[in-house]
Amino acid sequence: MDKVALLDLLDGVKENRVSANDAMEKLRAMPFEQLDFACLDTHRYLRQGLPEVIFGEGKSAEQIIEILDRLKAQNQIVVATRVSPDKAREILNVHKEAAWHENAGIITIGVLPAMRQGVKVAVVSAGTADLAVASEVGVMLSACGIDNEMIVDVGVSGLHRLFAQMDSLKTADVIVVIAGMDGALPSVVGGLVSCPVIAVPTSVGYGSSFDGLAALLSMLNSCSAGLTVVNIDNGFGAAVAAVRLINQIERRVRI
Amino acid sequence: MDKVALLDLLDGVKENRVSANDAMEKLRAMPFEQLDFACLDTHRYLRQGLPEVIFGEGKSAEQIIEILDRLKAQNQIVVATRVSPDKAREILNVHKEAAWHENAGIITIGVLPAMRQGVKVAVVSAGTADLAVASEVGVMLSACGIDNEMIVDVGVSGLHRLFAQMDSLKTADVIVVIAGMDGALPSVVGGLVSCPVIAVPTSVGYGSSFDGLAALLSMLNSCSAGLTVVNIDNGFGAAVAAVRLINQIERRVRI
Amino acid sequence: MDKVALLDLLDGVKENRVSANDAMEKLRAMPFEQLDFACLDTHRYLRQGLPEVIFGEGKSAEQIIEILDRLKAQNQIVVATRVSPDKAREILNVHKEAAWHENAGIITIGVLPAMRQGVKVAVVSAGTADLAVASEVGVMLSACGIDNEMIVDVGVSGLHRLFAQMDSLKTADVIVVIAGMDGALPSVVGGLVSCPVIAVPTSVGYGSSFDGLAALLSMLNSCSAGLTVVNIDNGFGAAVAAVRLINQIERRVRI
Amino acid sequence: MDKVALLDLLDGVKENRVSANDAMEKLRAMPFEQLDFACLDTHRYLRQGLPEVIFGEGKSAEQIIEILDRLKAQNQIVVATRVSPDKAREILNVHKEAAWHENAGIITIGVLPAMRQGVKVAVVSAGTADLAVASEVGVMLSACGIDNEMIVDVGVSGLHRLFAQMDSLKTADVIVVIAGMDGALPSVVGGLVSCPVIAVPTSVGYGSSFDGLAALLSMLNSCSAGLTVVNIDNGFGAAVAAVRLINQIERRVRI
Amino acid sequence: MDKVALLDLLDGVKENRVSANDAMEKLRAMPFEQLDFACLDTHRYLRQGLPEVIFGEGKSAEQIIEILDRLKAQNQIVVATRVSPDKAREILNVHKEAAWHENAGIITIGVLPAMRQGVKVAVVSAGTADLAVASEVGVMLSACGIDNEMIVDVGVSGLHRLFAQMDSLKTADVIVVIAGMDGALPSVVGGLVSCPVIAVPTSVGYGSSFDGLAALLSMLNSCSAGLTVVNIDNGFGAAVAAVRLINQIERRVRI
Amino acid sequence: MDKVALLDLLDGVKENRVSANDAMEKLRAMPFEQLDFACLDTHRYLRQGLPEVIFGEGKSAEQIIEILDRLKAQNQIVVATRVSPDKAREILNVHKEAAWHENAGIITIGVLPAMRQGVKVAVVSAGTADLAVASEVGVMLSACGIDNEMIVDVGVSGLHRLFAQMDSLKTADVIVVIAGMDGALPSVVGGLVSCPVIAVPTSVGYGSSFDGLAALLSMLNSCSAGLTVVNIDNGFGAAVAAVRLINQIERRVRI
Amino acid sequence: MDKVALLDLLDGVKENRVSANDAMEKLRAMPFEQLDFACLDTHRYLRQGLPEVIFGEGKSAEQIIEILDRLKAQNQIVVATRVSPDKAREILNVHKEAAWHENAGIITIGVLPAMRQGVKVAVVSAGTADLAVASEVGVMLSACGIDNEMIVDVGVSGLHRLFAQMDSLKTADVIVVIAGMDGALPSVVGGLVSCPVIAVPTSVGYGSSFDGLAALLSMLNSCSAGLTVVNIDNGFGAAVAAVRLINQIERRVRI
Amino acid sequence: MDKVALLDLLDGVKENRVSANDAMEKLRAMPFEQLDFACLDTHRYLRQGLPEVIFGEGKSAEQIIEILDRLKAQNQIVVATRVSPDKAREILNVHKEAAWHENAGIITIGVLPAMRQGVKVAVVSAGTADLAVASEVGVMLSACGIDNEMIVDVGVSGLHRLFAQMDSLKTADVIVVIAGMDGALPSVVGGLVSCPVIAVPTSVGYGSSFDGLAALLSMLNSCSAGLTVVNIDNGFGAAVAAVRLINQIERRVRI
Repeated sequence: MDKVALLDLLDGVKENRVSANDAMEKLRAMPFEQLDFACLDTHRYLRQGLPEVIFGEGKSAEQIIEILDRLKAQNQIVVATRVSPDKAREILNVHKEAAWHENAGIITIGVLPAMRQGVKVAVVSAGTADLAVASEVGVMLSACGIDNEMIVDVGVSGLHRLFAQMDSLKTADVIVVIAGMDGALPSVVGGLVSCPVIAVPTSVGYGSSFDGLAALLSMLNSCSAGLTVVNIDNGFGAAVAAVRLINQIERRVRI
Repeated sequence: MDKVALLDLLDGVKENRVSANDAMEKLRAMPFEQLDFACLDTHRYLRQGLPEVIFGEGKSAEQIIEILDRLKAQNQIVVATRVSPDKAREILNVHKEAAWHENAGIITIGVLPAMRQGVKVAVVSAGTADLAVASEVGVMLSACGIDNEMIVDVGVSGLHRLFAQMDSLKTADVIVVIAGMDGALPSVVGGLVSCPVIAVPTSVGYGSSFDGLAALLSMLNSCSAGLTVVNIDNGFGAAVAAVRLINQIERRVRI
Repeated sequence: MDKVALLDLLDGVKENRVSANDAMEKLRAMPFEQLDFACLDTHRYLRQGLPEVIFGEGKSAEQIIEILDRLKAQNQIVVATRVSPDKAREILNVHKEAAWHENAGIITIGVLPAMRQGVKVAVVSAGTADLAVASEVGVMLSACGIDNEMIVDVGVSGLHRLFAQMDSLKTADVIVVIAGMDGALPSVVGGLVSCPVIAVPTSVGYGSSFDGLAALLSMLNSCSAGLTVVNIDNGFGAAVAAVRLINQIERRVRI
Repeated sequence: MDKVALLDLLDGVKENRVSANDAMEKLRAMPFEQLDFACLDTHRYLRQGLPEVIFGEGKSAEQIIEILDRLKAQNQIVVATRVSPDKAREILNVHKEAAWHENAGIITIGVLPAMRQGVKVAVVSAGTADLAVASEVGVMLSACGIDNEMIVDVGVSGLHRLFAQMDSLKTADVIVVIAGMDGALPSVVGGLVSCPVIAVPTSVGYGSSFDGLAALLSMLNSCSAGLTVVNIDNGFGAAVAAVRLINQIERRVRI
Repeated sequence: MDKVALLDLLDGVKENRVSANDAMEKLRAMPFEQLDFACLDTHRYLRQGLPEVIFGEGKSAEQIIEILDRLKAQNQIVVATRVSPDKAREILNVHKEAAWHENAGIITIGVLPAMRQGVKVAVVSAGTADLAVASEVGVMLSACGIDNEMIVDVGVSGLHRLFAQMDSLKTADVIVVIAGMDGALPSVVGGLVSCPVIAVPTSVGYGSSFDGLAALLSMLNSCSAGLTVVNIDNGFGAAVAAVRLINQIERRVRI
Repeated sequence: MDKVALLDLLDGVKENRVSANDAMEKLRAMPFEQLDFACLDTHRYLRQGLPEVIFGEGKSAEQIIEILDRLKAQNQIVVATRVSPDKAREILNVHKEAAWHENAGIITIGVLPAMRQGVKVAVVSAGTADLAVASEVGVMLSACGIDNEMIVDVGVSGLHRLFAQMDSLKTADVIVVIAGMDGALPSVVGGLVSCPVIAVPTSVGYGSSFDGLAALLSMLNSCSAGLTVVNIDNGFGAAVAAVRLINQIERRVRI
Repeated sequence: MDKVALLDLLDGVKENRVSANDAMEKLRAMPFEQLDFACLDTHRYLRQGLPEVIFGEGKSAEQIIEILDRLKAQNQIVVATRVSPDKAREILNVHKEAAWHENAGIITIGVLPAMRQGVKVAVVSAGTADLAVASEVGVMLSACGIDNEMIVDVGVSGLHRLFAQMDSLKTADVIVVIAGMDGALPSVVGGLVSCPVIAVPTSVGYGSSFDGLAALLSMLNSCSAGLTVVNIDNGFGAAVAAVRLINQIERRVRI
Repeated sequence: MDKVALLDLLDGVKENRVSANDAMEKLRAMPFEQLDFACLDTHRYLRQGLPEVIFGEGKSAEQIIEILDRLKAQNQIVVATRVSPDKAREILNVHKEAAWHENAGIITIGVLPAMRQGVKVAVVSAGTADLAVASEVGVMLSACGIDNEMIVDVGVSGLHRLFAQMDSLKTADVIVVIAGMDGALPSVVGGLVSCPVIAVPTSVGYGSSFDGLAALLSMLNSCSAGLTVVNIDNGFGAAVAAVRLINQIERRVRI
């Protein structure tokens, strides 16, 4: 039942073509898709802080090009994640205005308007090998108009590197901490700051790292209270979690 | 090197007893405990939003009574989690001003000052069996002075129960979603709201639930972007994650 | 928005107090609970084939007694599963009309009207140790008014015992096959019949049976095509799956 | 002992060449292969609802071509699953009457006669990435002459998409629900309908999805009662399970 | 179709009451239970080397007493495994001729006739904690009339203890090797002898032994070729595997 | 300490150059390598029933060619397992007398003398996909001079195929049963025969077969007593286990 | 072949009763137990740094008392680990000179002579709940005469507590680091010092700590190079590893 | 706050520009990076025994060449591990003075000064397939100036090969034992020697070796007390653990 049909029903009530009782019965039997109206609001609201996202893995360059065509026609801000360099080259040949972020494996078209100044996410990663995931977080945040600072290669085996960044950590609104292998960095960061900390395990490691399981379990069992965790290598998810947070701050500040 | 020793060293410099170079060497060699000063600040800041917490599991009633004695002497707000009814009875015999929250298995002494009105955490749980974990979240939040609303028994096998609570969900600043078995509820909630959602898997279930592993994995792989997850049955951790979030909103609003 | 409010809105439209556009906006913003109407139908329909069910594990005898009180007041047919003998004794002291099925660990109050004659579920179990789960299936089916035949102790280590029951297997509409340890029985049964087969792994076994994991994996990887599987020890779930099936047959036959 | 030998034995009894006791002893010692007779009946019956199936994975194009040759000589309806596009091309060069279903990775030769009108299987999938498995279900069902409706991309992160399909869900005889990642969709569908629901976990996802384990466990622990589950990515198995079900309905309706 | 019915059918053929063709059809349709005849032979043969066995775990003393009653009436040799001392006491009060083997947790009634002299199984265990499983092997073998030698506490951390037993190892027909923790002993024994070696992992250990998983995996991956493995703590199974082996030797020697 | 040194020491004793006490001390301190003498015997004995074996996986064609050169110079019977077709081609170009067994992935040079007639191993496999492992068993046995019979494609989903082979099963001295997916076949075979049964799980399957884990666990938990199990896909190991067994029978028969 | 027999053989050579060749053959055939001589040396050497150890878990108080009787008769220094308070009370009633270390669950009789002054092991633990394991390490080291310093409750969530102990860490010869939950502490300690670090995961935690698996995996994947790990809760093993190390230092220093 | 700023502050105190109290406050607020001073010492100290290390896996030849450029400019001794032959060729084209160790997959530039004579690490490996990991240990040790002896192919299936090396084992200061498959070798070695033993599981094996998990678990549960373990295939980590140990011996000997 679309908008027209609904108006028509209401007009029918008004014009006495339909009794109130009958209309009520019709509305009660109204299939779930009407919820769409309400849902859309929710969704539009959620989308205010998020561009359209294409998960590039498992999609061909042609498929991504085609989806971009469609979204561009709607003037959408778009982010395509997990795009390989080969595919990226093909895509940029067609969509020349797109930007290619090689470390992150992300293609972006357009950027959301910048958030209020001063609000900032710190993106902290343990080793150089975790850079890809860290970049996914950073590029995604930038595409959402959120200021972010990359603090890389500050793993717990040399804590002085982390301590040198205390000022940055203390002024962040949210900290995303990325680590593979032992996954120990979020516990240390979580003990140093009081802001929200989102931990991202990575598949960096070998043997009994079991493709990130070791880091994931370590983070879920952090001795620093109040850390939250996302899936292995899920930089995108951590960024969206940060966006949800920053957006909520924005809403409250505006009120 | 404590405060007195440090002042003495500086006086030594001033009084030419110690050369600047020697002082610098001494300061460079300064053992790490001086960091304590800086650290304490951080910690005090963090503590502003958190009471003292005693993890009751594995501690005897006598041990908990003793720790409470010490903390009360410091006028601390205290929360003891995972306290069994038997221990609770013993403890309340001694600490008569303590409050016992049976569902949550928590004893509290005092409550932190209430947060700004209107800021609210929704605590949503899938089944009646998840109530213990949900209560741990709720009681912990209340002890931190944070308004919270319990929405229980709204699992995905009967979605109408959840939809009836949409108003509460839409006005929450943070939603903590608790589910055992299939762990599906956070994915559904995450798709309906745009605020931060913290998912708590519980050990409710049997067989291939593997004591909450099924729910944990389901939540980590949520198709709703931007969910974050804590350890199985870790209601306390989810509450602290929410406190970190609410506190950050408060800080920003105050600025 | 309840029935009265909805009627009032429609009257408002009729009486020109509310414009069709405004009403539409209100209806679009209509909270999800209205879905309740539609949902209830679905649920009532589902319930036609199912009694009210109480999952007894983790509930005290007092809690179960209280829930039974409430449901009896509504004249409900009730099944309480996973009830220990101790709790059962307490419950039957109060609810004297309840029936206690010791092997199945189930208490029933009332039975649904019997299904059409001739429709039958065969409940097949591999070893004597699987009897508890098999009984849970059988008692649950009986409570739903569905004819069922128990065929026990016909494990694959002595196939002649199974073959002696071929007639029963071939006349069943659905076969529920229950096995622990190697979980091999459903593969054999699935190869002998063409009707739907639901496999239930049990936690019977030790060592590398890992509390039913071995049987579960074996069943999920059955070389007999078209078997379906439920959770370890989930006799209740298998029975409900059979009820869904039998009900669908009934619906089609009636049409 | 073949048919001739058996007749000869019986003739021997008749003609008094063999005593009844001796014949009985011979029949008792009769090797198991005679069971073949009975078995074939069972199997022929089962096959009435199923074409011949070739599992293409691990077989070369040449091997598949050769098997197709043999089966075509027997006028069989054939389905070859898990065929890569490269192999498909080679095979269709030889077997020009074969049909290639690219999304499903299936080659078919012929189709079984259509089932009674109105009987229908709904094939519901959560994400676009699950389409391959959904297509395997759909093509397999079509090859078995069973009407089916594909409902794709209705994951739980945007429930309004699913609700828009309620009519289709409510009129289905069986629903096959396919989901990777959190595997939450079957729980939601199972709560909305009362017909049999078969859940298929897929290997879609990364990190802690562990190639479909997360979805599998979620489905096995569904909070919606009476769901059944098949192996990860086992669209073929789900389709055969649906065929077993539909066939049983057909048998009963015919009676 | 039982013996009487079969004779009757054959008589029918003889007396021309039944045509050969009809009889053949009847026999072809003959339900599987006739296989019972053949099967019983097989089973009787298998039983020649095995007493009746009762798996005591999960059975009450009363249940075991009752089964023993029944089997004694049939003059069976009986072995009841996994019997706790408490249950044993109750059982021996009733069945006074039964023998109680405390280390093995086994009750026996009667012993099978001894095998040919000189045939011997060596039962080798790594630590004193593995003694229970080793005893289960030994007592079971003795009950089957098979000579066996217990060689205990010869773990690989002190190889000289094992080497002191080389003579016993070299004269054994089969060696059952029992080890928990690292499960390393079978690999060492397998490299020293050329006879069949059956490895039994035990649940002895803690932490990452995961209740015997470490030992099980170690044994399955033995660098000594030709070892075979049974389930964790499955001393009974190892004994039966040895019986199968010794019996086959006996059969061949007799031929 | 080699043979010469040992003789020299003994001569020293004889010639009074070395006291008996000193010699004893020297002998007590005698490094372990002397054990070599004894060990070699054991090993030669073991080798009587086994050719030299090269594990081909992870070795280049050149490396295998070189090892074959060396072993041929010693007139050894040689078996190279897990050789890919590409490597095989290269190797056979050089070692033209070698035989290539494609299904088994094995190259052999020479064959051990045949065992006593009548002794036989049955090699039973569940599906066509298990053929590679079954062939590894068969070729290895043949190279050891042991008669073996291949019985393929007799999985439990169509038991009549297995029953048609009962005669072969009943006359075997050892049965090696190979199955992937549900791993159910060994349980069925183990219940039909009384001879030793060695179960080999294969990695055939997908999804929750977890590369053979499902079959492995199923076999370890077989409800047929006395089965033994080897590693996943370890056809070689199963063959050697059978050789150990057949050799032991031979030894006993000879005595 | 014992010492007497060996001397006799050598005398035989000397007295020409036995030829050198015959003696050599006898010695070559000499059963492995002679190795015992050499082995004992090794073992005595190893034992120089270790008391006799009784693993108390699974042993009754009576059994422990009896073993202590025997060892005391040999004037042995004895350590009994994993003794419960109840058993300890019984044991100390009999062996009144024994010392009971409650935190560690250890009973000791006697202490080995103290090592060279200045050599020291630091025993560092993350949380108060890890104290039992830390105490097992400390008491075991003390019983071996090795100086050790306990540094407890210095987990990574509050690094300042650890840094306050830098002096102790820097002067240790070996550091044993004990942590449950996230197992992060050894990585941090390993990055701060250059001496050997032995990591001990504990089963402290709940949910996805999986009884210490999370901590174990974290430690095995430490980003600090050169850490080594022992089994979960294996304080005893870590202590012995430290003893091996300290002993090797002692040997080298003495040289 | 760098060295200059610190000196300036102290001068300020001396010159009364800054009060002692203000200086103390500044020093208390001193960001963590000052710790850098102390830390560097620690690190330099640690580095005395270690070259610079580049983890080659996941880095391109170009990236490795560039890092080598930078480190050579600092006159560093460098080790690049996990370098493939292809990358090595490219790198050696540019850095002609680099040495390529093919078995180990390591490139070295320069070697640290040799340790005191006589100190030695024995590197023991079970099978030829473990050679790569063993070589990683050996080359890394050599680059650190530590004498090491390679003892390869001495797996437990033929113990005489190991015993022939007893002299080498007994004179080693540390033994690194490398094994895949059953991981049994370290237990045997640990029982023969009293020096520190570091166990390295390898991913050698197939099926239920689960890429080294079987060997890892076996080693963690060794029945030889005092073994320590590193990650699967972590030859580098074992070498560094040995370096930590040897260095500590050196320090003590020097004192």
